[in-house]
Amino acid sequence: MTSARSQTGRFITFEGGEGAGKSTQIRLLGNALEKSGHTVLQTREPGGSPGAEEIRSLLVTGDGDRWTGMTEVLLHFAARADHLERVVRPALKAGTWVLCDRFVDSSMAYQGIAQALGKDVIGELADLVVGTTMPDLTLILDLPVADGLARAGARGEGEDRYEKMGHAFHETLRQAFLDIATDAPERCKVIDATQQIDGVHRAVWDATAARFGL
Amino acid sequence: MTSARSQTGRFITFEGGEGAGKSTQIRLLGNALEKSGHTVLQTREPGGSPGAEEIRSLLVTGDGDRWTGMTEVLLHFAARADHLERVVRPALKAGTWVLCDRFVDSSMAYQGIAQALGKDVIGELADLVVGTTMPDLTLILDLPVADGLARAGARGEGEDRYEKMGHAFHETLRQAFLDIATDAPERCKVIDATQQIDGVHRAVWDATAARFGL
Repeated sequence: MTSARSQTGRFITFEGGEGAGKSTQIRLLGNALEKSGHTVLQTREPGGSPGAEEIRSLLVTGDGDRWTGMTEVLLHFAARADHLERVVRPALKAGTWVLCDRFVDSSMAYQGIAQALGKDVIGELADLVVGTTMPDLTLILDLPVADGLARAGARGEGEDRYEKMGHAFHETLRQAFLDIATDAPERCKVIDATQQIDGVHRAVWDATAARFGL
Repeated sequence: MTSARSQTGRFITFEGGEGAGKSTQIRLLGNALEKSGHTVLQTREPGGSPGAEEIRSLLVTGDGDRWTGMTEVLLHFAARADHLERVVRPALKAGTWVLCDRFVDSSMAYQGIAQALGKDVIGELADLVVGTTMPDLTLILDLPVADGLARAGARGEGEDRYEKMGHAFHETLRQAFLDIATDAPERCKVIDATQQIDGVHRAVWDATAARFGL
């Protein structure tokens, strides 16, 4: 069966708390998809385009109270609009599979729920900015908060503004991602990220293969 | 007559194209209001708070096509949310008169109309971010585009990203501000900015005095 949609690439997003192993799993899935003959773009939010990376630096450094919740979410969507228009949509149109580290579910979980800005605000901004460019598949890497923060802290890369927000914040965040998966089961798949890297990769691959008939 | 509203300060915004003389007129009106015994805060957008000034630097420098229209308007509203929450609303609550160089009408004229993003997008973001904190009075300084660009160019301050956008852009912008004034006559007053500085100041003062019974 051929459709207009089958001519375009696939959009896969990775979500989860700090230290869940998203970037490692994106690299492994990217390699596996390339071996299967697909063209793959690995990208991330906030960032993924030159302009969005400039906005990213405002978001991931500094004190936790650097921005009000509303400013923060608008900066995320400003970066997202640039990334979508200049990188993601052109890539999908060219048939590329786009693997993205965080997307609109992170705005919902972090700002909408954990920072209590409200689901409606995120929903309105998503309608305005994301429109129909929603992921075909979202893989939510889930693990206990303490494990994730220990891993993220070990990276010591300086982009630690969200990591510093406290244990209760991260527990709320974890539950928010699980609730998102429950609300959108056709799009989201929760992956147990407490496994070894290879085991997580197998689960990621199986979910991707099942979703797209690979 | 006493009301809760009369306990708070007044919010006056200055709008218009490049080189219309807004900052000079804000200074003169600020001085006059202080002489009348009012506490005055002179501020500007994009900017007006430390965080918003950081976002400002992304907006007023660089090439005209540095940002997509959607990213640009979201950056403006991100800066505005910070400015409103951390500076404007606390000042109004304390009884201060807030004089602001540009506000939401600039988003409507520049991004909504001249950059063709659409009035609806600006309206939705204004509802979300500005809410009920609309100006009590908006003074639109109007002058021919060529005069304004000549004045703005003479400043040579490097913040010239909007100035570089071409004559047709600025003609559209001028008309957009005049249309905003026509649509909200109870809030907006168009001031002839081709006059000498003193003449413009007298017109600004008269409009302010008439609006607030000074």
